[in-house]
Amino acid sequence: MSDKLATLLSMLNYFGIFVAAMSGAAAGIKWKTDFFGMVVLAFATGCSGGIFRDILLGDAPPENIRAWQPLVITLIAGLFTYFLFPSIQWFLKNPVQILDAFSLGVFTVIGANKALMFQITPVWAILLGVVTGVGGGMARDLLLTRPFTILHKEIYATASLAGGACVVLGWYLPPVYYEYFVVLGALVCTTVRILAVRFKWNMPTNQVSQRIRREN
Amino acid sequence: MSDKLATLLSMLNYFGIFVAAMSGAAAGIKWKTDFFGMVVLAFATGCSGGIFRDILLGDAPPENIRAWQPLVITLIAGLFTYFLFPSIQWFLKNPVQILDAFSLGVFTVIGANKALMFQITPVWAILLGVVTGVGGGMARDLLLTRPFTILHKEIYATASLAGGACVVLGWYLPPVYYEYFVVLGALVCTTVRILAVRFKWNMPTNQVSQRIRREN
Amino acid sequence: MSDKLATLLSMLNYFGIFVAAMSGAAAGIKWKTDFFGMVVLAFATGCSGGIFRDILLGDAPPENIRAWQPLVITLIAGLFTYFLFPSIQWFLKNPVQILDAFSLGVFTVIGANKALMFQITPVWAILLGVVTGVGGGMARDLLLTRPFTILHKEIYATASLAGGACVVLGWYLPPVYYEYFVVLGALVCTTVRILAVRFKWNMPTNQVSQRIRREN
Repeated sequence: MSDKLATLLSMLNYFGIFVAAMSGAAAGIKWKTDFFGMVVLAFATGCSGGIFRDILLGDAPPENIRAWQPLVITLIAGLFTYFLFPSIQWFLKNPVQILDAFSLGVFTVIGANKALMFQITPVWAILLGVVTGVGGGMARDLLLTRPFTILHKEIYATASLAGGACVVLGWYLPPVYYEYFVVLGALVCTTVRILAVRFKWNMPTNQVSQRIRREN
Repeated sequence: MSDKLATLLSMLNYFGIFVAAMSGAAAGIKWKTDFFGMVVLAFATGCSGGIFRDILLGDAPPENIRAWQPLVITLIAGLFTYFLFPSIQWFLKNPVQILDAFSLGVFTVIGANKALMFQITPVWAILLGVVTGVGGGMARDLLLTRPFTILHKEIYATASLAGGACVVLGWYLPPVYYEYFVVLGALVCTTVRILAVRFKWNMPTNQVSQRIRREN
Repeated sequence: MSDKLATLLSMLNYFGIFVAAMSGAAAGIKWKTDFFGMVVLAFATGCSGGIFRDILLGDAPPENIRAWQPLVITLIAGLFTYFLFPSIQWFLKNPVQILDAFSLGVFTVIGANKALMFQITPVWAILLGVVTGVGGGMARDLLLTRPFTILHKEIYATASLAGGACVVLGWYLPPVYYEYFVVLGALVCTTVRILAVRFKWNMPTNQVSQRIRREN
């Protein structure tokens, strides 16, 4: 990957952490945690995906802990949300849905790319992209001891799978194309996710669970 | 360990993953997750025990991620359960109780054996056998945000402890016996578990908690 | 650090594990787990903080698994609590509040010190002290699938932050002072925590969450 793309991805990664941390902090405020709890939730939502990925890759200490930026970004996002909660809440319901889809795309391709550089098999490179993309939301739900939205939500992980698949595909083509496929992966993932939110797409569920769902 | 036994254990391991993944997928269907959520639950139930063990042993990336078989087996188990849910459900209530005890035994001895090869102390080798054996069920309960059945269930971890103890005992005897003790450990664990289910054995609980239980 | 201080910290660490394990075991009895579940909770409460820290530092297998003492101490604490539950419960409501603050202090400085020795950046050294200090309580709450008290509790993590900050400060002063700052860190953390419990100090919460809290 060229230095230029690496720098771009890294900037976008920080931006993704900022958006995700804001949504984690907002969840903390709604759940009535104290200030510290709010920051913990912000950090967990923004950075856990990358931490899980690095633990699985054996890259210790995880990047998001080694570097100082993720933490600082989280703190800023936390203060922001704390002092501007009503406006942030409006923001989270509207533009953030878009930004969130955007950071899902960025996290996914960064995760898949890193896994490939660690010599992981193609399918697991895709899946570690998914881990990076959805891990933050899972850590947030875990801390709030509420059901994992990811297991029920419309095409979320699926968008991430599609984005990761682009990256892995590009990895096996002549190197000159790789960067395009990384960018394409982020775009595909973000687009699929936005369309899924917009048109309420859902994955098929088993007939039995559909029946159970109707009965309840 | 002879190559023959290693191959046998490895085959049995895959079979154990298949059975555990089916039970995870069935839990997903009952919990009304979408198809992706179901596969996540299947993988978590089948493979988390080994992943937790490998993270604790520092063997990164974990075996169940490095190899392609666990994932493929999980997918097949997921598709199976998805399309044949009613029959699978009958199967899960009846023969699977037996097969589940069987995979507890296999996971346990594989975990204990691997821990010993990583120079872990005897007691922790037994316990990492338990982690391998019960970790999948715990990950499933965690994802479903329901109470950990393992903390309440009849002799489950205890069967696993007994099986792991056989393996560790064999490790300190002349090498010629080791294989027999590995096989013995799997048999002991499986048998204890099946008998516990059959005769509803339970571990003692504290008198205070028995009183609390009666009161509720 | 001099050998004398290292030995002292190590003894205090075991004492901290003992106290934390007792509180975990008592929680297990109240939640009506069987004997095995109780021991699991005791171990999780006493040793998870250190295990999380070591996984994040990449020090595998984690110290609390490599050494035999943590497990033995946990078992003793478990048996103690099992057979003497009514007296232990009185103890947990009264002196243990103090002892618990004390072990928070010890865990924190040990964690921060270890992170510094692993070349972690200053802020993360403080935070890994917090992880070591509060991880056990979080693991206990996770196993009991109840809300994480840490996210709501009076100045708990904050006391830990203060203690870790002392250690990190001392690390950057001439080495002759380091030991004093380690001891000071433990004292600061313990004192802040005891005062917070005594005077019911709380972190500020967002105005919105205060309103939500009043409404409920």
